[in-house]
Amino acid sequence: MPSRKLSGKPEELAAFIDKFDIFLFDCDGVLWQGKALLPRTVETLAHLRNLGKHLLFVTNNSTKSRATYQKTLQDFGIPCDVNEIFCSAYSSAIYISRVLQLPRDKKVYVIGESGIEEELAAEGITYIGDDGGDITPEDYDSFGPDEDVGVVLCGLDRAISYRKLARAYQYLRNPETVFLATNIDSTFPTHGKLFPGAGAISAPLICMTGRTPVSLGKPSQAMMDAIEGVLKFDKKRACMVGDRLDTDIRFGIEGGLGGTLAVLTGVSTEEEILEEGAAAVPDVYLDRLCDILG
Amino acid sequence: MPSRKLSGKPEELAAFIDKFDIFLFDCDGVLWQGKALLPRTVETLAHLRNLGKHLLFVTNNSTKSRATYQKTLQDFGIPCDVNEIFCSAYSSAIYISRVLQLPRDKKVYVIGESGIEEELAAEGITYIGDDGGDITPEDYDSFGPDEDVGVVLCGLDRAISYRKLARAYQYLRNPETVFLATNIDSTFPTHGKLFPGAGAISAPLICMTGRTPVSLGKPSQAMMDAIEGVLKFDKKRACMVGDRLDTDIRFGIEGGLGGTLAVLTGVSTEEEILEEGAAAVPDVYLDRLCDILG
Repeated sequence: MPSRKLSGKPEELAAFIDKFDIFLFDCDGVLWQGKALLPRTVETLAHLRNLGKHLLFVTNNSTKSRATYQKTLQDFGIPCDVNEIFCSAYSSAIYISRVLQLPRDKKVYVIGESGIEEELAAEGITYIGDDGGDITPEDYDSFGPDEDVGVVLCGLDRAISYRKLARAYQYLRNPETVFLATNIDSTFPTHGKLFPGAGAISAPLICMTGRTPVSLGKPSQAMMDAIEGVLKFDKKRACMVGDRLDTDIRFGIEGGLGGTLAVLTGVSTEEEILEEGAAAVPDVYLDRLCDILG
Repeated sequence: MPSRKLSGKPEELAAFIDKFDIFLFDCDGVLWQGKALLPRTVETLAHLRNLGKHLLFVTNNSTKSRATYQKTLQDFGIPCDVNEIFCSAYSSAIYISRVLQLPRDKKVYVIGESGIEEELAAEGITYIGDDGGDITPEDYDSFGPDEDVGVVLCGLDRAISYRKLARAYQYLRNPETVFLATNIDSTFPTHGKLFPGAGAISAPLICMTGRTPVSLGKPSQAMMDAIEGVLKFDKKRACMVGDRLDTDIRFGIEGGLGGTLAVLTGVSTEEEILEEGAAAVPDVYLDRLCDILG
């Protein structure tokens, strides 16, 4: 069934909202764009809370921990609880501790930023990283497999280096070492442009090993598992709201949520939503999130 | 026809050598392994020269210019002329100047090491690079397309950085900007192990842009074009000697050379040569290059 644009009629908007108890929001491109809050975001979220809806903030951003991301939301004037936030750094930590159940004597080798380290530490997972300096002649001799490394976890790392990749590769040559990615978005939008995303950072490792990492970000259902692992809710009464068809909307559809709502303030366009062979078709869409206020 | 191992019989070896006027050698894994010269390499090459054979050294190594690579050969005790050396940095420069005929007012953006810069300079090509420092808040604003950049050339760069990749991506978003790779080997062997190769360095750009670079290294026939552009020879009287089926041997076969000889001192094994569905089947193979001496 093709997607349809929600009309601005109050009764239609109210009927749509009434179908759900819980709304899962992608953030960048939905609530804000880069550093700019989108119009009436705060009022829209407050309106939904006033109607008794639960709100979750589900982001593939791996550079921030939930605590740091909470501060980002609060700086935009959006009140929220840390337990309402699901970042890919958090879903990765949950996956490693609760799904993989990584033995205590094994370590995670991390390519990524501080958010990942904070979430791994919070789950009591031992991790190592690389300081990212230049590779040295001694490194060529000393780098090798390490049986203590049970997982290589790769996220967005704006200090990526040859040395970091070379170490990861040595670990991944052991087929027992699990290969995880916080998310596989090839780019990430900032300052009105696209820059290399976590998927670009793991691309060299995929190229070298021929292995495909398990992704813990949308649209991977490992992210849904992480949410359900800590929060029980009726999926049929849940709606995913996002700006990207191939991640957000697909995540909601494949997760069996009761509804999906796309907004046109981010990556995907109205043409992409309506064209045949769309990456994923949302039930409904709006120009902007605040249009749900009527 | 399956490959066969050359017997050690003097008449068979002499008959094989007699079929060719020119031998193209891959170097690492054929003449030496890392820093160790393989047995009797110097005598073998001297023997071929004494028989009046032309020798070429054809390597995907992009980090060195021909002049620097000549010194590598000489340090191993292998006399050679700089014109006998074809590195992927050189074939890239030749391709840009003579095949693409890049206009004088256009620049090449280089991800790579000094060998590329030296060969581009020798061909009179203007190039720019990135100092590889951390990406700054100003970079996010200032990075963007640049019409003066006509080519992005990516080789092995052991000082790869997020900033370098981010700049390359901005240039490559312009579909007019040509995307080249010195070579696409995912790994390169050194110190008895494998480390990230040029193919791993271009992988993030491929992931982000969805574009495939033209490769100037073996098995790409752009390398053969570069050789033929500066040296006329009868291909039917030429033999490619290498240790990798998927690069060296395939290069010789697809280039229509009269013969291909694999040696077992590098990457590919006898099993791989003889198995059905081999990446490329050499006419003949030997345990070691020096076995050709009998």
